Amino acid sequence: MSHKRTAHFCPQCGTRLEQRQRTGALRPVCPNCDHTVYFDPKVAVVVLIIHDEHILLVQRAHDPKQGFWTLPGGFVDAGEDPQAAACREAWEETSLDIQIDGLLNVFHTPDDGGIADIVIAYAASVISGTPSAADDAEAVGWFGRDAIPRLAFMPTEQIVRDWAARRF
Amino acid sequence: MSHKRTAHFCPQCGTRLEQRQRTGALRPVCPNCDHTVYFDPKVAVVVLIIHDEHILLVQRAHDPKQGFWTLPGGFVDAGEDPQAAACREAWEETSLDIQIDGLLNVFHTPDDGGIADIVIAYAASVISGTPSAADDAEAVGWFGRDAIPRLAFMPTEQIVRDWAARRF
Repeated sequence: MSHKRTAHFCPQCGTRLEQRQRTGALRPVCPNCDHTVYFDPKVAVVVLIIHDEHILLVQRAHDPKQGFWTLPGGFVDAGEDPQAAACREAWEETSLDIQIDGLLNVFHTPDDGGIADIVIAYAASVISGTPSAADDAEAVGWFGRDAIPRLAFMPTEQIVRDWAARRF
Repeated sequence: MSHKRTAHFCPQCGTRLEQRQRTGALRPVCPNCDHTVYFDPKVAVVVLIIHDEHILLVQRAHDPKQGFWTLPGGFVDAGEDPQAAACREAWEETSLDIQIDGLLNVFHTPDDGGIADIVIAYAASVISGTPSAADDAEAVGWFGRDAIPRLAFMPTEQIVRDWAARRF
């Protein structure tokens, strides 16, 4: 996935951009049409699906962190409800239909090896379906507190550790 | 502020973009350099600053909702810690140095009259300073539960209503 936080040409008119002061920072501004490029945070969601004292983890099919296990999740598109994005990603990766039960936390993850800036984490439960890996997931499985596999990414590590320690 | 969710020209090389299927959706793709334009959510933060059974509200200096009162807040830049953004915005609008005490909620706000897609709300307390309106704020004031002014935007309305009803 290409997600460059640079812009050399105006996305509205194609003119080469210049750095100008706008709303408190130097930002790329178009000298032709005056469009300002604002770089928004890249937002991901992850979801802790709990069933019968086990949690659902997916094994990553691709780098970064190929082979490691994470909570199901992915990026929130512009305009998308983050809870709906969490349900969509869970369905795409695990074939499970889930419902969001609550907000767990919001993480800032600039140095986490991924490309998300902000990760919103939810707790959820299964409405229907049988876990089946797809999309970005190589495998999917239910894990108890005594058998947590090798995890990737700080939000997953922190949430699974807190769940394993029965902190929520 | 200009924040268009369209792109006609490649921000990397200036070539006119084409709509192509990428990661599950039609997205603007550059036929020259293969750059894909992903539109990320616009993320705002708001902060409920509580002191001595009063909360701090700011009166909006500009449209949308000029003259209405809201929680201090603003947009999170790419790469910025949302908690740091909340402290920065509180300082810019009220001249107060605050500390974040906890996460209150995450809202999806596509139809709220503003331009944020996602609003992250924190509770906070004052470290130092005297409230003084600046930046986007016309006025600033402490309000008790029996004297809430005319409010703007759903996250502010919901949080202030819950606080006034002593639901947290």
